[in-house]
Amino acid sequence: MKLAEARDLDQSDAFATKRAQFKLPEGVVYLDGNSLGALPRGVEEAVQQLVTNQWGKSLIRGWNEHDWIDLPEKVASKLAPLLGTKAHCISCGDSTSLNVFKTLAAALSLRPARKIILSDTGNFPTDLYMAQGLSQLLAQGHELKTVAPEDVAEAIDESVAVLMLTQVDYRSGKLHPMAELTQKAQAVGALTLWDLAHSAGAFQVELDACNADFAVGCGYKYLNGGPGAPAFCYVAERHHKALASPLSGWMGHAAPFAFDHEYQPAEGVRRLRVGTPPILGLTALNRALDVYDGVDMQELRKKALALCDLFIEEVQTRCPQVELVGSKNRSAYGSQVSFRHESGYAIVQALIAEGVIGDFRAPNVMRFGFTPLYIGYEDTVKAAQTLQQVLEEELWRQPEYMTKAKVT
Amino acid sequence: MKLAEARDLDQSDAFATKRAQFKLPEGVVYLDGNSLGALPRGVEEAVQQLVTNQWGKSLIRGWNEHDWIDLPEKVASKLAPLLGTKAHCISCGDSTSLNVFKTLAAALSLRPARKIILSDTGNFPTDLYMAQGLSQLLAQGHELKTVAPEDVAEAIDESVAVLMLTQVDYRSGKLHPMAELTQKAQAVGALTLWDLAHSAGAFQVELDACNADFAVGCGYKYLNGGPGAPAFCYVAERHHKALASPLSGWMGHAAPFAFDHEYQPAEGVRRLRVGTPPILGLTALNRALDVYDGVDMQELRKKALALCDLFIEEVQTRCPQVELVGSKNRSAYGSQVSFRHESGYAIVQALIAEGVIGDFRAPNVMRFGFTPLYIGYEDTVKAAQTLQQVLEEELWRQPEYMTKAKVT
Repeated sequence: MKLAEARDLDQSDAFATKRAQFKLPEGVVYLDGNSLGALPRGVEEAVQQLVTNQWGKSLIRGWNEHDWIDLPEKVASKLAPLLGTKAHCISCGDSTSLNVFKTLAAALSLRPARKIILSDTGNFPTDLYMAQGLSQLLAQGHELKTVAPEDVAEAIDESVAVLMLTQVDYRSGKLHPMAELTQKAQAVGALTLWDLAHSAGAFQVELDACNADFAVGCGYKYLNGGPGAPAFCYVAERHHKALASPLSGWMGHAAPFAFDHEYQPAEGVRRLRVGTPPILGLTALNRALDVYDGVDMQELRKKALALCDLFIEEVQTRCPQVELVGSKNRSAYGSQVSFRHESGYAIVQALIAEGVIGDFRAPNVMRFGFTPLYIGYEDTVKAAQTLQQVLEEELWRQPEYMTKAKVT
Repeated sequence: MKLAEARDLDQSDAFATKRAQFKLPEGVVYLDGNSLGALPRGVEEAVQQLVTNQWGKSLIRGWNEHDWIDLPEKVASKLAPLLGTKAHCISCGDSTSLNVFKTLAAALSLRPARKIILSDTGNFPTDLYMAQGLSQLLAQGHELKTVAPEDVAEAIDESVAVLMLTQVDYRSGKLHPMAELTQKAQAVGALTLWDLAHSAGAFQVELDACNADFAVGCGYKYLNGGPGAPAFCYVAERHHKALASPLSGWMGHAAPFAFDHEYQPAEGVRRLRVGTPPILGLTALNRALDVYDGVDMQELRKKALALCDLFIEEVQTRCPQVELVGSKNRSAYGSQVSFRHESGYAIVQALIAEGVIGDFRAPNVMRFGFTPLYIGYEDTVKAAQTLQQVLEEELWRQPEYMTKAKVT
């Protein structure tokens, strides 16, 4: 596609005005919003207001005067429509890893006779690690069983307590069919735990419609909450009554300010709160979610697929040196495109130096996220052009691109 | 004391210049820095820099370019001298409650044959709740045993796995003798877990000198990290090798960006990291800790005791209606003074309306924190005068002061 044609598509794009709601550096094509979302404009002011006027002036009174105490619920109410559920099924706070621990422990306690946590080898490592740590802590013979992503359906049997999957594979971008696998798991009496790290904000998630049991997700990727933003979890309403909260902190108590000696869980998912909510992080996430106001998630998905298709076509035309991860049928993938190259790490560093930011996932995956709220068609063509240049001119063969940074 | 005399003391005070490093609202005497510390001036700018220039411009590159990934260690290195230990014994992140869970689980795993967690009835509820939740999750017969604070020493015996105490009682302000109780516990083979919520930043904590085993603490009280700031924990170096991390997230992995399938713990306390660090909260806390630059903690403690003594004297002279919690020997207390009154809640609300901010802890405790970096002698006399006025004029008998707010 010619750049002029891409520019025309950008001008007629339904999300053309959304891009202006983000602060993006000049001369950068940012294809890593699936790792750390870009900065929504209102966030700076919201955080400054919080620090200077709320904390600075109200001090301790801020908890009541500015309703900090209910900020997790406020964020939950903005997350709910993106996730296809109701606010009272979502608890916001802590990290994704901790939310895996909370929900997995709760799920296992509902299936005491079963010992298998079924997952796939493509799952994000922290989910697997948390399951390993929890199993070891429980010392009741739980076992984390991982199979190849394509073998998950077949591996679901009556030994499975919990099917724990990330809906969108963080490397390949491949989507697990949530409705179908949930149904299959439930048919044999298993529960499901879905990690929505690369789903929430990327497309319409349908937790209730899929009859999911538990879910977790991340606030700093497509949701643009900032580095290390609070995460969230979801519990289907039918499990609220029996919900066991292993991390039984005071904020999950029925009456935190009664300072009782005995833990009494709050109603529903509120019992999944643990310590004092992180008000700075929640304030940023709360404001960031406002960019989803008025966004038609079906249109968003359409544009994401169009960008992914365009990127694949442009790269495959220009760069025979790289191999597409997965197939061209993008409806089976999330909002990212990955290519393999044995020197992927160095190529990504060279791309970044040229202003195209993607990322690398070991062992050999170059990953490009397409966030339609701030990425357009021209960006996409430019990114492919730059990859072509990096490969043809071997710009990646610089010694400094070979040395791995602390964070990749 | 006359106000003029108090003003003279303020002028000759070693910390007179420190007060200017905080942004405090006009006309307020803030005696609740033990609940939420005041705003240190540099924090606004640090947070704005982070959001606008680091996140906004570096985007994902911020993890390396601005070394976000090592921010927990940077904060640990500033906490270490306040706690009487070395940075590599401190892990920063998550809430205090979660740090109780991590360290208590680690401690229990070191004493597998023992089932008693000994604490006191004055401990902060979330510590007790987390111990209850962990015991239930472990299902190995662990029992949380609580005795009156004054009976702790006597209750330490060979059945105790972990002695879990908050060094400064959150209501009375009473100090547990850390060195003595640690020695007593260790003499019978028990381990100690100290909650430093009301100690860290209030006076010199001596974790290493007391031979403490584990500790946790809060970032938003005396340390001024802002509402819901990240917390921290401490593990004595001798336990690092055997340290078990029950919340085994990817940030505690030996090589997070290798994306291995099997959890391999990082060295030492780094394995107590769980998910992605909360960079907004850590940035605020990191900058806030700079107000401790050049602070002589012995001098700080001297001033705190002088303020507490003065407040007690002034209140006892002016307000026979209230009863001091504990004794006048303030070296046995932290940096707070509490008074009892059956209408304590309403009295505190009336005080706040008059510009003196303390807080209330159920059932009948009015609590006043003295933070010598920004509270002076004049403030202290004014606070006692205001309490006298509220009591004499019965200003607290307003219906709106009777209704409890969500957060007290």
